[in-house]
Amino acid sequence: MPKRVDHEHRRQQIAAAVRRIAADRGLEGVSLNEVAAEAGISKGFVQHYFASRDDMLRYATTTLRGALEERIVARSGDGVRVRDLLIALLPLDEAARDDALVANAFLVRALKDPEIACHFRTGHRLLRDTVAALLAAARADGDLVPTVDPATEAVLLLALVSGLADAVLLGYQSGDEAIALIDLHLSRITATRRNPR
Amino acid sequence: MPKRVDHEHRRQQIAAAVRRIAADRGLEGVSLNEVAAEAGISKGFVQHYFASRDDMLRYATTTLRGALEERIVARSGDGVRVRDLLIALLPLDEAARDDALVANAFLVRALKDPEIACHFRTGHRLLRDTVAALLAAARADGDLVPTVDPATEAVLLLALVSGLADAVLLGYQSGDEAIALIDLHLSRITATRRNPR
Repeated sequence: MPKRVDHEHRRQQIAAAVRRIAADRGLEGVSLNEVAAEAGISKGFVQHYFASRDDMLRYATTTLRGALEERIVARSGDGVRVRDLLIALLPLDEAARDDALVANAFLVRALKDPEIACHFRTGHRLLRDTVAALLAAARADGDLVPTVDPATEAVLLLALVSGLADAVLLGYQSGDEAIALIDLHLSRITATRRNPR
Repeated sequence: MPKRVDHEHRRQQIAAAVRRIAADRGLEGVSLNEVAAEAGISKGFVQHYFASRDDMLRYATTTLRGALEERIVARSGDGVRVRDLLIALLPLDEAARDDALVANAFLVRALKDPEIACHFRTGHRLLRDTVAALLAAARADGDLVPTVDPATEAVLLLALVSGLADAVLLGYQSGDEAIALIDLHLSRITATRRNPR
């Protein structure tokens, strides 16, 4: 059997187990025993790769951002509109739902752990800049109400989508209703609908 | 010493301890030992008032809604505008910040526990109906763009404020920036600014 273990691969495997448990039961479910069982490895193995539970949680947050970045990049190609990106942030499929649950599970922790808070902020900044760039491009094309400031609007849109994502998770609204509300908001900042002539 | 113990009062005292711990460390910090220490009573006492940890968490959610209702009622008197109510939902002071943290701590749990989910939905419905009523009154007074539907707009506004509340908690924005974004949104649905003549 090969002696060499792919250290990073194993850490990612453990982080994936942390994410699955956090999505299912919140961080309170993330114990050394549960993570080992979920990852299908021994407790000692988990301890070999992470010095502490906090260490494991911090690493899991970095992989969370990775998933978000992948989803953004996948949606940021040519011709992608801001609407597509915003909808991609709603928990409409299993993967996005799990990501939203894990992000929520980590939120309270993020407020006490500067390292985790930093990962959250970096992820938010990336999103905000991406949305602002898409809005600026739309404005340059004359598709946006001229008074709309891309940077400000990006922050407003992301807050709206974040609130809608929680509302969908909690069953206050369906995914379709959330999309309709995004469209309602976008109709107010796009030039075509406001000046239809 | 009086033998009679005020059962409900004691349960509220324990729930307050649960909320303080949840705001500080998330639900993962809520153990029997921690709650007893925080409430300044014995473990046996806690067990006397709650059959299980789940039972205790469920009760704590009901008291959470109580705090929200009080805040709404306090802001729903004559002459209260929707803006005031929305701003009251932002974590701008210690109490509102703790409430927001506790609600976040309970969110993942709410998705697995129908009873807690029910409390969340009832609280949201109350808020939505209150905001919709304020918007309907504003529309009747000619203060709203006539095409704005109060019920739909209430859901959109609450999603926006919920996202802004998380953003303020996480330090993405300051409280003042969040208020400015609420005002930006309200300026788009109020009649005066859109038709200034």
